[in-house]
Amino acid sequence: MRLHLPILCAALLASGFFASAQQAISGAGDLVSPEIHPDNSVTIRTFAPDAKRICVEGTFTNGSEDLTKDESGLWEWNSNGPVDSDLHFYRLVVDGVTTVDVANTYVYRDVWLVASYFIVPGGKGDYYMARDVPHGTVSKVWYHTDVLGTDRRMTVYTPAGYEDSHRKYPVLYLLHGQGGDEEAWISLGRAYQILDNLIAEGKAEPMIVVMTNANCKHNAMAGEDGGGMFKPYNAGSTDSSFETHFKDVVKYVESHYRVIKKSSSRAIAGLSMGGFHSNVISLNYPKTFDYVGLFSAAVPGIRVIADGPKIDPGVYEDIDAKLAAQFRNKPRLYYIAIGDEDFLYQDNLKWRAKLDEGNYPYVWYETGEGHIWKNWRIYLTDFLPRLFK
Amino acid sequence: MRLHLPILCAALLASGFFASAQQAISGAGDLVSPEIHPDNSVTIRTFAPDAKRICVEGTFTNGSEDLTKDESGLWEWNSNGPVDSDLHFYRLVVDGVTTVDVANTYVYRDVWLVASYFIVPGGKGDYYMARDVPHGTVSKVWYHTDVLGTDRRMTVYTPAGYEDSHRKYPVLYLLHGQGGDEEAWISLGRAYQILDNLIAEGKAEPMIVVMTNANCKHNAMAGEDGGGMFKPYNAGSTDSSFETHFKDVVKYVESHYRVIKKSSSRAIAGLSMGGFHSNVISLNYPKTFDYVGLFSAAVPGIRVIADGPKIDPGVYEDIDAKLAAQFRNKPRLYYIAIGDEDFLYQDNLKWRAKLDEGNYPYVWYETGEGHIWKNWRIYLTDFLPRLFK
Repeated sequence: MRLHLPILCAALLASGFFASAQQAISGAGDLVSPEIHPDNSVTIRTFAPDAKRICVEGTFTNGSEDLTKDESGLWEWNSNGPVDSDLHFYRLVVDGVTTVDVANTYVYRDVWLVASYFIVPGGKGDYYMARDVPHGTVSKVWYHTDVLGTDRRMTVYTPAGYEDSHRKYPVLYLLHGQGGDEEAWISLGRAYQILDNLIAEGKAEPMIVVMTNANCKHNAMAGEDGGGMFKPYNAGSTDSSFETHFKDVVKYVESHYRVIKKSSSRAIAGLSMGGFHSNVISLNYPKTFDYVGLFSAAVPGIRVIADGPKIDPGVYEDIDAKLAAQFRNKPRLYYIAIGDEDFLYQDNLKWRAKLDEGNYPYVWYETGEGHIWKNWRIYLTDFLPRLFK
Repeated sequence: MRLHLPILCAALLASGFFASAQQAISGAGDLVSPEIHPDNSVTIRTFAPDAKRICVEGTFTNGSEDLTKDESGLWEWNSNGPVDSDLHFYRLVVDGVTTVDVANTYVYRDVWLVASYFIVPGGKGDYYMARDVPHGTVSKVWYHTDVLGTDRRMTVYTPAGYEDSHRKYPVLYLLHGQGGDEEAWISLGRAYQILDNLIAEGKAEPMIVVMTNANCKHNAMAGEDGGGMFKPYNAGSTDSSFETHFKDVVKYVESHYRVIKKSSSRAIAGLSMGGFHSNVISLNYPKTFDYVGLFSAAVPGIRVIADGPKIDPGVYEDIDAKLAAQFRNKPRLYYIAIGDEDFLYQDNLKWRAKLDEGNYPYVWYETGEGHIWKNWRIYLTDFLPRLFK
């Protein structure tokens, strides 16, 4: 992040935005923010001679913290010590207006909110960074579903080497939470980088990863289908449309990619609502997935995710009998990950008690903190090496 | 853009950012900005009781224009009349800090700058919006180049139906300008939507479109290779590395996609530096491309794009002889598009004079304004229907 921008007149050569809106360029061009120092401490900067108060709020601050201004109008905040190795979000609050850091190119969207981010190396953050390793291909693909009578969009990761071999691969179906979409695991979840890095280190098997969109009221993420440039919202899909149509996802993947069509080469996992979906789908197709991952998952039959009409209410019924059938097929991995501050922690304890009651084997991975992306990246990094071995 | 956000407590269910940084949520949640009214007038809003001055600067304003504040602390700006149908950028200036509109989910990056955007319908903007039509697949693909001894990333569009046929397709190589990368034509250029919409209307032939990255100092856009999370800058590649390695791009495409391997099914086009590259590459491979598009292009031999060492300086030499050879092969389309306010306008007039001198046929498409994305989207929309007919 130390790279300084060359003089801006060069920018005029080819950039339409510079050319058409030069007036919009403030003094932020040669400003470095964030700066990640060798000891992993972090400095945030913004240039604002006229502002009265600027705060930073992020995953590395203690609530809202003030930047301090020098006589030139430059504001700074220092972490005064190393920041954890991770992907960190933050936003600046300029005289009461919460916004991004204008000097930082890197911006993420979560549901409808945009925020600035950076990655601190030296630990788990190293898995979230693109490294100089062989890279997989990431595609935005449209598949047809007869069940819903439409085309829908999903993201498909194929591992490095896929295009140059005849090999068949196992498949992980990786599902987002409420408010997410087919971009969530790729952007916030860093699935692309985690997969590339774990596969390059030989820790995870090369696999295809399919990231669907469960907001069945739209066919794609905001702005990418015919639904207009709507403001993304927190609607999920718990009217059973997602679970009911999921066989069309598997059908598309298995007819369009070189995959091993065996339960021992299929995994399904998801976070929050996506954990709920993974659970329900694997219950209803007990012979399809030998690997199941529930990350901070809502739990069927314990928490009512959404009321209202269901396309096929049967998918949510007879949970205990379906669970027994699922475990009669001896899944190779039934993995539950949850933070001890998660609002779904007690629900997950109850689900675990149900598994214990049936003598159903599982892996329980408990972390600190709660329902946050930090945990979901940790769970994915821990889960992937356990698959298809 | 009229959709209001449901109450935020729902958001807590599944969004890590909401859960970990609730304090960062200002009053912007239920604020609609921008609002595009039925007459295509536009309102920009932000909530900032403590700010002293807020301005908007964009492709639809006259420089910097002030928002006005009501007694509740809500700031508003109105266009007072329809805004042109187009994709529009803007940024807000809050007490001197230039930044994005926090209520708007839609953000683009141009070189290193982020800005908010919206699309006004009812004209050319309709081609830039995702519509309810069959959609192509967009993939981020890594190819190997022996010439540069590395893997590099590019974006590949395959048209709707590609995955479900045995048909072979023509290919357009579509090149970005200085400061751009493999994402530029997809995001700012709206190539994905323009292609889907023109193909669905029967105006353009279904084709594969290959969007490379010409910044040969990195193997991918910022943050996507092992080069770290650098701040994107305006470096291009005019040391001949891009032109010299381009045969490896064509080789990869023609060995990994179902393409028609004939000059009549190959096109190359680009904007600014990408127009320069298209020109130089088509000069050096006079039998490869029957379609050439130069959008606001820098012109070989007229303007020195960059000094310094060249990998293969020969690609920039003997222009006149190469041009004669190129036209002996009778390209089906040699297309030049330029705005009459472009700083490269005079250079393009000189290039046209050279073509006239040789009696080389071409299409000249002149628009108003200059070196801006608005024009490049217009040129692409005009160019695509002329290909492969």
